[in-house]
Amino acid sequence: KVNPDRLWDSLMEMAKIGPGVAGGNNRQTLTDADGEGRALFQKWCEDAGCTMGVDKIGNMFATRPGTDPEALPVYVGSHLDTQPTGGKYDGVLGVLGGLELIRTLNDLGIKTKHPIVVTNWTNEEGTRFAPAMLASGVFAGLHTQEWAENKTDAEGKRFGDELDRIGWRGTEEVGDRRDKMHAFFELHIEQGPILEAEGRDIGVVTHGQGLSWTQITVHGKDSHTGSTPMPMRKNAGLAMARILEKVEEIALSHAPHAVGAAGHIDVYPNSRNVIPGKAVFTIDFRSPDLSVIQDMEAQLQAAARKICADMGMEVELEKVGGFDPVTFDETCVRAVRTAAERLGYSHMDIISGAGHDACWINRVCPTAMIMCPCVDGLSHNEAEEITKDWAKAGADVLLHAVVETAEV
Amino acid sequence: KVNPDRLWDSLMEMAKIGPGVAGGNNRQTLTDADGEGRALFQKWCEDAGCTMGVDKIGNMFATRPGTDPEALPVYVGSHLDTQPTGGKYDGVLGVLGGLELIRTLNDLGIKTKHPIVVTNWTNEEGTRFAPAMLASGVFAGLHTQEWAENKTDAEGKRFGDELDRIGWRGTEEVGDRRDKMHAFFELHIEQGPILEAEGRDIGVVTHGQGLSWTQITVHGKDSHTGSTPMPMRKNAGLAMARILEKVEEIALSHAPHAVGAAGHIDVYPNSRNVIPGKAVFTIDFRSPDLSVIQDMEAQLQAAARKICADMGMEVELEKVGGFDPVTFDETCVRAVRTAAERLGYSHMDIISGAGHDACWINRVCPTAMIMCPCVDGLSHNEAEEITKDWAKAGADVLLHAVVETAEV
Ligand SMILES: NC(=O)NCCC(=O)O
Ligand SMILES: NC(=O)NCCC(=O)O
Repeated sequence: KVNPDRLWDSLMEMAKIGPGVAGGNNRQTLTDADGEGRALFQKWCEDAGCTMGVDKIGNMFATRPGTDPEALPVYVGSHLDTQPTGGKYDGVLGVLGGLELIRTLNDLGIKTKHPIVVTNWTNEEGTRFAPAMLASGVFAGLHTQEWAENKTDAEGKRFGDELDRIGWRGTEEVGDRRDKMHAFFELHIEQGPILEAEGRDIGVVTHGQGLSWTQITVHGKDSHTGSTPMPMRKNAGLAMARILEKVEEIALSHAPHAVGAAGHIDVYPNSRNVIPGKAVFTIDFRSPDLSVIQDMEAQLQAAARKICADMGMEVELEKVGGFDPVTFDETCVRAVRTAAERLGYSHMDIISGAGHDACWINRVCPTAMIMCPCVDGLSHNEAEEITKDWAKAGADVLLHAVVETAEV
Repeated sequence: KVNPDRLWDSLMEMAKIGPGVAGGNNRQTLTDADGEGRALFQKWCEDAGCTMGVDKIGNMFATRPGTDPEALPVYVGSHLDTQPTGGKYDGVLGVLGGLELIRTLNDLGIKTKHPIVVTNWTNEEGTRFAPAMLASGVFAGLHTQEWAENKTDAEGKRFGDELDRIGWRGTEEVGDRRDKMHAFFELHIEQGPILEAEGRDIGVVTHGQGLSWTQITVHGKDSHTGSTPMPMRKNAGLAMARILEKVEEIALSHAPHAVGAAGHIDVYPNSRNVIPGKAVFTIDFRSPDLSVIQDMEAQLQAAARKICADMGMEVELEKVGGFDPVTFDETCVRAVRTAAERLGYSHMDIISGAGHDACWINRVCPTAMIMCPCVDGLSHNEAEEITKDWAKAGADVLLHAVVETAEV
């Protein structure tokens, strides 16, 4: 079993880097804080006897050698970047849980046949640079490296430039390891309320729901809020409001297996006495059922076009992110379930509500995820919290599933 | 009559300072560009033989002496600050029209009994620091200087600090001149479509409609867009959308003498995969009828509270700006109408849809406004446009109304 205190101390140590404003973290991808977090992780990995490889998009791979030179590595890990007002565990638990597994094997003097690699995937959150899971997506061959590097943040800074700026562009070709992976396991907090409500320690993740991000731009006409008569207005903010209401309606009409919301909303010029001439916002639809996602996308398209046409405005819709629902690998899932059973942790099968790097890596090697509960199902919030016991259970199950897969 | 080419050249020269991104201006109050614009205006005034006074809140007063030491000055002017995506004429025409009137009197060697003072009021637009017409409001005794100086912009910078930073805090006590004003005339573009539609050169402004700005803060709960079940969400952005729809309904139900919209909209943390935990936005209601404004405010309060209560969220409403409908001074208004008639310009009485410094100054001395048309009624937009003929007509009427009032 892992050392829960050591795991917890590492989580708290990492949380000191890029502190938030309310007890959580703001360690967004490719910021100075991200660079600092990476350096600390590298140091810890090297202290644990691993060698660190970094690819040209900043993905980090800390390798603990195996005993069989022919055996492909078993990968574990997640991401160290956070939301702007993010928690201390989202992503971090999976990376440091992987590190704790290495430390535990070292303590016990256990050697595995397959090497074990702990990864930190660049820009999982997708806040600064859409889409989410960007670098694992490039690694898995879903996007080109160039496409990813040209993504810009709200200030117009390029992903590629920011990667160079923080000094974490490595030398490995991205995806070189793709065909040499025995398996991948990602430990993550649930970010939803189900495990806590059901009183289970472990979620055995069988599927991941799919996602669709549509960025909508409504073109109105900026004009004076006082002297422009109501019939002459082209209020892009009002068109946006009507679309947002529709998004809720569309998601609810597909209940219970669909969700929808807009987290990103900007109006221009954003001045109290100027009718918004432009509104830019992103709709996030999710479902475990691909046809439901496609249906919601189509309804959104139709609704947005109708609302804007009725108001005499132009609208553009652009898909800026998405992935299809995922079915994880049966053998890996079974390894997780068996480990939980063997260790005596209460568990249940669960569908991941969030996207994870594992969703992309699942396309290139057998993959599974382990979830542990989080308080009130709250995530993407600085108040995100877990217990040390939950962290321990998750890391224990990770240890056992990986050791079984990597073979002693 | 004024020299229209000189007036136009000055307008174009000023427009070079703080250029926008689409042909207009971004010369927001208390920015470096505002400081540059002030310096140019001061130079022009001094070249025209005026002496410049500046008060402790940055209001500028360029005085052309009168012949009677006992006679109180006639004031003219408006503001040089602009919206973030503003036009070249909103405010500027009134200031430089005042300068042109001085230059014309100089050319013609005309002396007036009353001194004439051309003013530039600080922070008329209210975008960077709410409310609008802030410094003329302090001058007129509506707000305290301290209250104004403590206003902060979106980056948290204080009005008072920014005033010091650009070096335009003067030495005069604010409002010292308040009881020594013979009259005030403000020339301004209409910012609405009426004069152009009616084919009139001049709007004789008899009234100004009142305004109410209510800043609404909805407190939801930031959480994951994917893994938070629909029934557990507290989506502050959705509550905002519902309130925005209601604002439109409330304004339309008071048609045709009311308008309403939200120009300022921010959600937090504004991340694509985080349900907005907070939405902050400002509702702008206007009407020439005070009871209509009060009615709309009450309906907004009730609607916002009900919408948020139904969604299980807290809401705060704060009045961050407002003024009652204004009736301008009969004698001053008559001077404007008579000047237009004498000069042969087509004219009509009009109610100002926008707020102006004149609305506050009207409380401390006899005041009137002169409006000229703007193309398509468009303002608070970089594409704001007027013709040289319209500018000339406005400045001519200003000249004549002021000369009549200041007595030759
Ligand atoms: N786990 C997580 O929050 N990932 C970000 C991508 C998503 O929005 O699901
Ligand atoms: N004239 C003008 O645009 N003033 C700003 C105050 C307002 O919003 O009416």
